[in-house]
Amino acid sequence: MLTRDTTHTLTEQLAARFAERIRSRLLPAGARLPSVRACAAQQSVSPYTVVAAYDLLQAQGLVEARRQRGFYVRDYVAKAVVTAPAAPPVAKDKTLKDAVSLSLPAASARINATSLIRGMMHKATHPQPGAGMFPPEWLQNQFLQSALRKVVGSDALHAMHWSYGAPMGDELLRALLTDRLKELGLPVGMEQVMTTMGATQGLDIVSRTLLKAGDAVMVEEPGWSVEFARLAALGMQVLPVPRGPDGPDLAVMRHYCETHAPKLYVSVSVLHNPTSYSLHPAAAHQVLQLAQAFNFYIVEDDTYSHIAPEHATRLSVLDGLQRSIYVSGFAKILAPNWRVGYMVAPPDLVDRMLDTKLLSTLTSPALMERAMALCIENGQLRRHIERMRSRLVQARKHSVPLALESGCCFVTEPAGMFGWVDTGMDTEVLAQRMLDENYLIAPGSLFHASRQPSTLMRINYACTQDPSFWRVYQRVRAEFPQAEPMPR
Amino acid sequence: MLTRDTTHTLTEQLAARFAERIRSRLLPAGARLPSVRACAAQQSVSPYTVVAAYDLLQAQGLVEARRQRGFYVRDYVAKAVVTAPAAPPVAKDKTLKDAVSLSLPAASARINATSLIRGMMHKATHPQPGAGMFPPEWLQNQFLQSALRKVVGSDALHAMHWSYGAPMGDELLRALLTDRLKELGLPVGMEQVMTTMGATQGLDIVSRTLLKAGDAVMVEEPGWSVEFARLAALGMQVLPVPRGPDGPDLAVMRHYCETHAPKLYVSVSVLHNPTSYSLHPAAAHQVLQLAQAFNFYIVEDDTYSHIAPEHATRLSVLDGLQRSIYVSGFAKILAPNWRVGYMVAPPDLVDRMLDTKLLSTLTSPALMERAMALCIENGQLRRHIERMRSRLVQARKHSVPLALESGCCFVTEPAGMFGWVDTGMDTEVLAQRMLDENYLIAPGSLFHASRQPSTLMRINYACTQDPSFWRVYQRVRAEFPQAEPMPR
Repeated sequence: MLTRDTTHTLTEQLAARFAERIRSRLLPAGARLPSVRACAAQQSVSPYTVVAAYDLLQAQGLVEARRQRGFYVRDYVAKAVVTAPAAPPVAKDKTLKDAVSLSLPAASARINATSLIRGMMHKATHPQPGAGMFPPEWLQNQFLQSALRKVVGSDALHAMHWSYGAPMGDELLRALLTDRLKELGLPVGMEQVMTTMGATQGLDIVSRTLLKAGDAVMVEEPGWSVEFARLAALGMQVLPVPRGPDGPDLAVMRHYCETHAPKLYVSVSVLHNPTSYSLHPAAAHQVLQLAQAFNFYIVEDDTYSHIAPEHATRLSVLDGLQRSIYVSGFAKILAPNWRVGYMVAPPDLVDRMLDTKLLSTLTSPALMERAMALCIENGQLRRHIERMRSRLVQARKHSVPLALESGCCFVTEPAGMFGWVDTGMDTEVLAQRMLDENYLIAPGSLFHASRQPSTLMRINYACTQDPSFWRVYQRVRAEFPQAEPMPR
Repeated sequence: MLTRDTTHTLTEQLAARFAERIRSRLLPAGARLPSVRACAAQQSVSPYTVVAAYDLLQAQGLVEARRQRGFYVRDYVAKAVVTAPAAPPVAKDKTLKDAVSLSLPAASARINATSLIRGMMHKATHPQPGAGMFPPEWLQNQFLQSALRKVVGSDALHAMHWSYGAPMGDELLRALLTDRLKELGLPVGMEQVMTTMGATQGLDIVSRTLLKAGDAVMVEEPGWSVEFARLAALGMQVLPVPRGPDGPDLAVMRHYCETHAPKLYVSVSVLHNPTSYSLHPAAAHQVLQLAQAFNFYIVEDDTYSHIAPEHATRLSVLDGLQRSIYVSGFAKILAPNWRVGYMVAPPDLVDRMLDTKLLSTLTSPALMERAMALCIENGQLRRHIERMRSRLVQARKHSVPLALESGCCFVTEPAGMFGWVDTGMDTEVLAQRMLDENYLIAPGSLFHASRQPSTLMRINYACTQDPSFWRVYQRVRAEFPQAEPMPR
């Protein structure tokens, strides 16, 4: 909120707010600033103050005035965009048509994937509904610190600093992970398990090892935008496959297989982001049949593994890791900054994956890996996970009614960490306005390969339990009473 | 050495030795095992034992017999190879001709880049002449442990585990790095300094941000093979530029600029690996003029920064970071496994580099970065570096005469960490034979983009002070008295 009792004028405060948003790219290049009139009304200042603030931003080189059209954020960074397939598949039915709307131009002036990540990493005074992680107070514990102290003080481990370390990762952690994998139904040897810098590096390694620029890759839509962005940056052709309650749209998938010969399918089988859908065994079976018939690999991103229901269906388990790679990590459940993740690959691919790891980061810090191993070994991670799971159940019990009372409709059955809700208005517009209120929300367009406008948004159940957020949401939402219905 | 007093037969021991070498890829796919007669002579066993061992390896699926030709390592891993330019530049003089011999086929059956790295990471009982790092006992110290303890115990830093952390890296480290950079002649702001997972990730981020598959990149030859391998894996066209005592061969560079429009030049200006050459200011000036005229970027890999002479010439300093990116790290001088590195980019590229970091590993562990920052802040790193530098001077005083007495010729003036010596025989053959004696050497072919055979090898001064290595070298070298002169 702008205040009159500081050493900075209202103009300076307003300009500073926009400047920060532009620098953090929450207002991306090409975005239009609100009209002077709208901004003045929203901020309760005079139009003169707004004009002065916009002039200040222009003098700073952050925005430019376009005659008769207003002020726009300057395009100072060239961006990779998602490549749409040359010929969109023929629409056979409504689902297909809705899903494969690739002829829409990529809207570059929208909040982009890395902006959201950066926003997620901003230190906030309150939980952010758009955040992709649990609030710090959920993760906080003493046992991690103890494990670290133990590793730092250990003579045997002292030596780990003076060499590059084991290329495949810390041996204790890898041994313990094979136990975990066995529980999931993946009885693999240690030699198939490689540590990575978070699941993020695991997914990156898979793309870099199996694909070359121009290759076609199937990705679930809606889906995690960082995956779209990464594949686009690597020069891949991104083929979005609609994700339904039971699994991917198999008709679309088959169509892509027949027309684009994709090399890889990237999938979050369990508690899919943002829908929280989990894969049905029958759908899993059919996906694997397609993979065999059309000879593509599958990378299964099991980021939400620790909060998943028991006996959830995983593609790599059904497949026995024949043509699938399993990727997971601990960033969601324990220590995001530690970047401890891992991947499990078919025996004939392990060596190539290791090569890619060596070429990208050489090794990974054994200190973090060993400390994580100790937390697993002494059972504290397991107890922590149990606490997190029941806390999440409670959070959903609070958040879901609040969202409903605020006029949001749940598009998918509430489960896991994320809710996928319909607001009835363009959530990009809503997101910009909510930033004024210091709330970061995750607009639906972020989860679409082509960034098409959407009335949906993803909410984090752990961060939407506070009624005060929903009061602000209702007030802001009411500013747009005429919002026209939009395609989801 | 094979022994008769163990629970395993000589056959089993010999097979196990080859199996390990094949699995670690020091004997890469396609390589031919020694002839039965030669192997029997080298190992002092009967030809029958060798045949039995080879049969065992064949039964394990590791080698295959080719009729009348012997046993070959099975090609179970598909490998990226360096792409030679479509039309090799016209040879204008001898230097040019020697240098740009790209029509030679890539010899896939040679020790490859990642094999050498893996070998470097093997726990060895004695220093390895081919190693790229200082021996662990040089790096060992107490202050690192203290710094870690301090960070782990600090309440203020406790919080760093519960979030993803600052995308650009730990603020204290970045602030201290700006001081270091200022000393080097690079007065940059903190906002231009980003931490990476070692210099390796820095170089990877630069390639991924500035290049797309198929782009031409100039790399020094001889040069660090991981860089060739990385660029090849990313689908780039690698253009090797001969590196001389003063800098790159400018005639070759200009030729490439005129014919291939390269987008990037990858350079180790100071204590270049493997030659230990350092760039002359006049050459630096000319490289920058070429970069301006032909509009390519430069990434300067300053990995050997801490052992470099005072006031060494750096391209990014002359350039003022206009079209150059500076990359460095602490793996060589202090804690290889910590993977603490950093990069400094021109202001207009910083955001794009950060995006690539986010897409590849998200963030980097603040714990290691902060502990490194404490070591810098309290002056202990500086004192450690001084000790390392004088120790290296002593090591060269020991190693150089030993190498000369063993019949090696220094191709370049001894300096820095590495010596570049001529053995008078194919060092790939020598390397395979030295492995039998448990010595890993770095054959010259590893430092060439096209892996052409070479009589040169790189020695690590810190790891070649022991006369016992040189005695073994002399004995093994004497087994090949008829070695024909080869192109260097």
